[in-house]
Parts: sequence; C-alpha cells; structure tokens
Amino acid sequence: MSAKPPTSLDVAREAGVSQATVSYVLNDRQGVRISDETRARVLEAVDRLGYVPHAGARTLRTGHSGLVLVPLVDVPYGPLAVGLMEELDRELSRLGYTMIQYGARRLKGMAAARAWAELRPVAVLAPAGRLTRQSVDVLRSAGIKAVIGIGVVGWSSEIVSTMTLDHEGIGATAAEHLLARGSRTLTAIVPAEDGLRDMGLLRAAGVRRVAAARGVPYTRVDLAFSEAATAARLDMWRAVDTTGHARTKHGVFAYNDEYAMLLMAVLADNGFSVPGDVAVVGCDDLPLANLLRPRLTTVRLDVTTGPAMLAQTLDEIVRGGAAGQRRLALWSHALVERDST
Amino acid sequence: MSAKPPTSLDVAREAGVSQATVSYVLNDRQGVRISDETRARVLEAVDRLGYVPHAGARTLRTGHSGLVLVPLVDVPYGPLAVGLMEELDRELSRLGYTMIQYGARRLKGMAAARAWAELRPVAVLAPAGRLTRQSVDVLRSAGIKAVIGIGVVGWSSEIVSTMTLDHEGIGATAAEHLLARGSRTLTAIVPAEDGLRDMGLLRAAGVRRVAAARGVPYTRVDLAFSEAATAARLDMWRAVDTTGHARTKHGVFAYNDEYAMLLMAVLADNGFSVPGDVAVVGCDDLPLANLLRPRLTTVRLDVTTGPAMLAQTLDEIVRGGAAGQRRLALWSHALVERDST
Repeated sequence: MSAKPPTSLDVAREAGVSQATVSYVLNDRQGVRISDETRARVLEAVDRLGYVPHAGARTLRTGHSGLVLVPLVDVPYGPLAVGLMEELDRELSRLGYTMIQYGARRLKGMAAARAWAELRPVAVLAPAGRLTRQSVDVLRSAGIKAVIGIGVVGWSSEIVSTMTLDHEGIGATAAEHLLARGSRTLTAIVPAEDGLRDMGLLRAAGVRRVAAARGVPYTRVDLAFSEAATAARLDMWRAVDTTGHARTKHGVFAYNDEYAMLLMAVLADNGFSVPGDVAVVGCDDLPLANLLRPRLTTVRLDVTTGPAMLAQTLDEIVRGGAAGQRRLALWSHALVERDST
Repeated sequence: MSAKPPTSLDVAREAGVSQATVSYVLNDRQGVRISDETRARVLEAVDRLGYVPHAGARTLRTGHSGLVLVPLVDVPYGPLAVGLMEELDRELSRLGYTMIQYGARRLKGMAAARAWAELRPVAVLAPAGRLTRQSVDVLRSAGIKAVIGIGVVGWSSEIVSTMTLDHEGIGATAAEHLLARGSRTLTAIVPAEDGLRDMGLLRAAGVRRVAAARGVPYTRVDLAFSEAATAARLDMWRAVDTTGHARTKHGVFAYNDEYAMLLMAVLADNGFSVPGDVAVVGCDDLPLANLLRPRLTTVRLDVTTGPAMLAQTLDEIVRGGAAGQRRLALWSHALVERDST
C-alpha cells in the first residue's frame, strides 16, 4: 500500500496505456473506440492499485457531483424526520443522486455555506433559517445548481425554492375534530424542550385559530415531559357542573403521540375518564398510538409523496428545466379516528 | 453571479495581490508576514466574489479533509441509533471533524468503497459487513487514515479497528433478571421485520445462553408487530396448574420497549396479569416505558461514553498515534427495574 493515493497516471503506467485512454475507459466516453483487451487491462490496473477518482475530478467531467447535501439540524430527530430522510435518500438514489447528511450542526450563516460548498454538492436542501441571500449567493457561486429551503407554511422566499411544513394545519385539524366530537374547550400542549417548542407553538397556533373562529375557550399549556408537571396542570379540567348536569367535555391536542401517552397515563392515574372528561388527540400515529387504551386518535402525516416530489423537483432544477421558485408541501396530513376523542 | 465558480486567481486579481498571498491569508500560514491591510483586502475580495476553496484543495493543504464519513445503513433508525449519531457528531465537532452520513444505502462492496473514497474523508466508520480486505485497501489507498468497523461482539477483524455492539449481553442481562424475579420459563421475542431481525436473533441468543446455563425451558418467538399475531401466541402461557398451586410465572424478553408495549396490551386485553402470570422486560428505556402500567422494566443502553471514546480513538488513529487494531464498546447497558417483572 503506497503512502500517496495512486493517480490516473499511475494507472496508465501500470496498464501500459496513455493517461487519455484511462480517462476514456473510466468515463465510458462515447465515440471513442477502445478494444476490450485494453479496457480490461485498465480496469485490472485500477483494481490492483486501488485507484479512486476524486469527487472533484468527477465534477469536472460530468458537470455535477451528484451529491445532495442536507445539513443536520440541532433538534431531536423523531421518527417522522428519520422516515422523511430515508424516503428522500431512496428517491434521490433512484434518480442517480447521493444524499449526504452534513454534521457540524452549530455552523451558521456564511461559515456553514462555505463548509457545505467545499464538498461541491449539486444541490443543498437546508432549513430556511440557515439560508440568507448572501449564503445562497456563496452556494450558487460555488456551482451548486439547486438550493432548496425548508420552511413553515407562510414563510416565503424569493431567493430559493421551498419545501413547506404545515404544522399549523395539524393543530387546526385536531381542533376541528375535537369540536366535532363535542369538546367545549380547547387546549394545546406545547413541549418545553428546545427543538420541539417551535414546532409546538406552530401547532398550537392552529388550535388557537380554530378556537377563535368558533368562540371556544382556548388554553396553551407549556409542558415538560414529566408526570409530575402534567399532574400539576389537571385542575383546569376538574371543575364539575354543580347542578348535576354532565361535566364539560374538554379537548386537548397533545402535540404528539408521546405527549398524548403521558397525558393519558396521568389522567387515568388521577381518575379522569378519556374521552368522557378529556378527549385527547396525538400526532404521528406511532405504533404506540394504537396500543393505548383507549386507542389514541391522532394526526398522521403522509410522507410518501413529499420526498418523491422533492427529489423530482430538485432533479428538474439541476437539469435546468425549472423556471422560477417552486413551492412544495413536504407532507399531507389526515386524522386517524380512534377511541380517545 | 458568474456562471463559473471564482478561483483563488480571481480573488488575487480582485484584491490586487499575488495568488500566493491569497493562499497565505486563507491558510493562516505560519512564518509569513502579511500586513493587516493586505489581509483585509483579500478577505473582502473573498466575500465579494463568494470564493470557496474546494475540499480537495484543503486536503492538499492540511493533509486531511476533516470529514468523517458514516454510511447510512438499510435498517430502520430507532431512537438509539439516532441518539448515537447525534452524540458522535457533537464529539467529532469538538475535535475539529465534520461527520457526514452518506446515503446510497444499496451500494455494496467495492462500489461503495470507491464512492466513499471519492469524497476524500479522513476517516470512515462503516458496518463491519460492508468492509472487506479489498474495500479497506481501496479506502486506505485513497488516503483515508482511519477505517473503523462497527460489528457485534465476537466479530473480529485483523484489518480495521472495531466498535462492538453487545446485543447478546442485553438479552443475557434481561434473562438473569427474569430468573432472579422468579420466572420459571424464558421466552425471547424476535421481530419479524427486516433490519430488526438480525439484532433480535443476537439478543435472543443471550437469553438462550442463560436458559441453557440454568436449565430453564427456553422458547424463541418470531413475531410481526401486530396485535393479532401476538394474541395467537398467548396459549403457551395459558397452562394453569390444575392442583390449585400457583401458576408458573413466565419471563419474556420482548426485544425492545415497543414490542413490550405490544405484548403488555395484548396480555391485558386477554386477562393475563403482568407480572403475575408473565413478567416482561423491554429494551431502550423510551419515554413510553415509564408511562406503561405496570411501569416497564427495561434494559437501558448508556451511549454517553461510547461516542466520545470513538471520536477520541479516531482522532488518535488519524494523528498516527494509535498502534495496532483497537476495540471499543459502543455502549454499556444496565437494567432499569420497574414493575413489570
């Protein structure tokens, strides 16, 4: 094993051919006739020496590297995000691209753009908050053909195409369902954890919007993932109707299935009936949702079409066929009705 | 915005300095005196043109790219794997490396090694099953300084350092605990899903080993994640002692917390008592474990030290300070005793 990586010149010497011939063979260049015997000799030399062309060299040959760079973000990756990335990787592979998830999560602004650009990806798919006009210019100047921002619905960009995440719509869908099932108040749980809080606020805004439109009392509850913290908030649902009439039925959108499970466990431990006293809606439709008793009504995000559309759009932009800025929804959502509402 | 990415020559022209001066400024070269005014002019030109050095150029300058390439694998990423990667990214960042997770999950063997090598990472951390002597040679020839294989305990390699995953030990720990709590039979659940099945078999082997050593009946149950499939397997625990003595207490290691939740829901629906009739142990200590009733006894994997040790070892190998092949455990595990056993 040599200390220095072998070059195409080393391959040419080993095979007894010219460097141009090595290049023709490795790039499968059209219109150049090379005998099967020569081709075999070059490929044997490549194997023997362990020659690997540099990604930069491939960029020069094909015009692009085929790499799609997706920066990792500094929030906990739940099953939804993990599933989205898996699906996107699969779709990009089908189109001949390779997805790489880029670490160094704390890099921001121009420093981040420069670091990403160093790998000469053909496309970058980044959270909108990490893209400024200046950083997009850096990416474009480095030859990156497609820069796509991931932002929430309502976030708008003139500089890049965007994938939108409709968190507010999730909250609104849960709220409409709770009202349809007879809830007389609406509560939105917002996780206290960093990284989840922002998404929680957006989902809560959807609940608040529906509550305001229907004239229903609305409460936002910021909650750490703890049984004690949850138990401390139960009083708001304890008030009974002293005239002997049925209690008010309360509706809660619990942010996700795990918070819904937390809430349901604490409600049960404290003698509340679900859905009689409190109706609960989760989000994600994790395996646990259907295993809870009562089975959990939840909002399911359909991520089967978003990644395919994204990969398709990215490919069109790279090939120069996409005019103007595009907008795509990364998921659609739908209510899964079960027994907790 | 120019069509071609700007070069360091463009920067030199823009700043009115030599190309060598640009290089000195950007690489903060020791022993070369450059006035503050010249330095400022170069950096302004870099910003104005959006100049980004190529990663390959940096490799030539510093001897390594700082990239640690981790191929994504074709199994579902659970919270454990996601947490491990987050922790590893953080630790590598602290040491000045950048982790990239590489897609194209279906690439195998030499094709995979060549594709990884094209990015000129300084280190590759790959599943042992994707590393052969030949592919490791390709990686080393391409200048990659550290190749680390991730394998199960017992897998041994003379060609690379290894991170080991002790799945069998998890099963053995669960089994020892079940016996200590009075279980008279041992069952290991193995998930039927692709990607989980292999890990399930390893964990089950740990249960089987303990059962054999203690002379206790052992059963392996291959199970799809479905209530119906689970309900169909309950008969094995239904036999009652007709003499009126206490029933036999059965012990089940359920592979992970989600399978444990599935089993506990189906047991409760069918009138079994946990832990009276069947004691259940999960794995992962997910938030749901502590929310189940009874609260779930589980095996917790401690991944707080593994990634730091791995990053440290990788850095030592890259710097040339590590002699021979190293072996590290990626996690330690410990039983979390709750009420299901």
